Amino acid sequence: MTMPVAKVEFWYEFASTYSYLSAMRIEAAAKAAGVEVLWKPFLLGPIFFAQGWTTSPFNIYPAKGRYMVREMERLTAARGLPFKMPTPFPQNSLLAARIAIIAHEEGWGIPFSKCVYAAEFGEGASISDADSLGGILRDLGQDPARVIALTGQAETKERLKQRNEEAQELGIFGAPSFLAGSELFWGDDRLEQALSFAKQG
Amino acid sequence: MTMPVAKVEFWYEFASTYSYLSAMRIEAAAKAAGVEVLWKPFLLGPIFFAQGWTTSPFNIYPAKGRYMVREMERLTAARGLPFKMPTPFPQNSLLAARIAIIAHEEGWGIPFSKCVYAAEFGEGASISDADSLGGILRDLGQDPARVIALTGQAETKERLKQRNEEAQELGIFGAPSFLAGSELFWGDDRLEQALSFAKQG
Repeated sequence: MTMPVAKVEFWYEFASTYSYLSAMRIEAAAKAAGVEVLWKPFLLGPIFFAQGWTTSPFNIYPAKGRYMVREMERLTAARGLPFKMPTPFPQNSLLAARIAIIAHEEGWGIPFSKCVYAAEFGEGASISDADSLGGILRDLGQDPARVIALTGQAETKERLKQRNEEAQELGIFGAPSFLAGSELFWGDDRLEQALSFAKQG
Repeated sequence: MTMPVAKVEFWYEFASTYSYLSAMRIEAAAKAAGVEVLWKPFLLGPIFFAQGWTTSPFNIYPAKGRYMVREMERLTAARGLPFKMPTPFPQNSLLAARIAIIAHEEGWGIPFSKCVYAAEFGEGASISDADSLGGILRDLGQDPARVIALTGQAETKERLKQRNEEAQELGIFGAPSFLAGSELFWGDDRLEQALSFAKQG
């Protein structure tokens, strides 16, 4: 007889600064808590668009955007993480998300995702096109031509679309979000609560 | 020779659910940290209006609103606080804010503010008019007729207006917000960081 394993779904968007924070610490935090993590890359763009936003709320509401950058400076400094905002912000995350869908199926989704975040928010690099993502793929021992070709297939596109629809059905409206059972937790600062809830539930 | 006292400004809006959480714990948290708190009631309405919102973002974005209510249920349960949403939400907080401006000058601003939050989010009661606020004033030993008359004076209105302008100049875009020196912290979950920053700064 085996005990059911406590699980948390980690819903993340590559263009999201706060998702960077969680991607860099969720493995260690979940291991310490004895919780399994399912990584769920998705796109916030369609969700924002459905509520009338055509760019990041951090651009639409400048005071919020300035605050976010200052807070990211504080939090990354406290955690010993590098931080540099990419230009433009937000980066177009469509291709990275399609690659992540493939990568998680093939077993290299976590290092890929962390490398994308490290480039984008650690170095301020572009992560929006095949050129910039190609370097990351090569570093991970993947053939960029093979992977980029897979992102163009209808099946990959459809799976990301379904993922985004699932996000919307779950009531997800921001990233990172954590799902423990049917309980939703929003924000890097809610990771501990989500892990704790997963253990109790 | 005396040491300068570490200070945090607590910017709160009576219509804000998360401000309720902070109002109920900031005295104890600040005392434990050795930090002095300056209570700054203000109105989010003009700030929201300036960015095109005519009601709470929790109403404009229903997924966010549903999440907020669920999270408030979780957080209040964990902290042993009662919780009931008032109808309508948000409550019109103009009169309560004007009273709070007077109350803080006269030395009863903290108990008044906590009583307003306890009624509004602990019992789901209205806090929008002179009738509902009159009961709170009486409980605090204040003469409702005297206080309500003061809220109608041009000077009181002007001071709240100036307070709101100050909030906007400080880059405040939500409540609760905490100001430690020139560092802004947004959200009840940032109270500890703000207190810690105030001590170091």
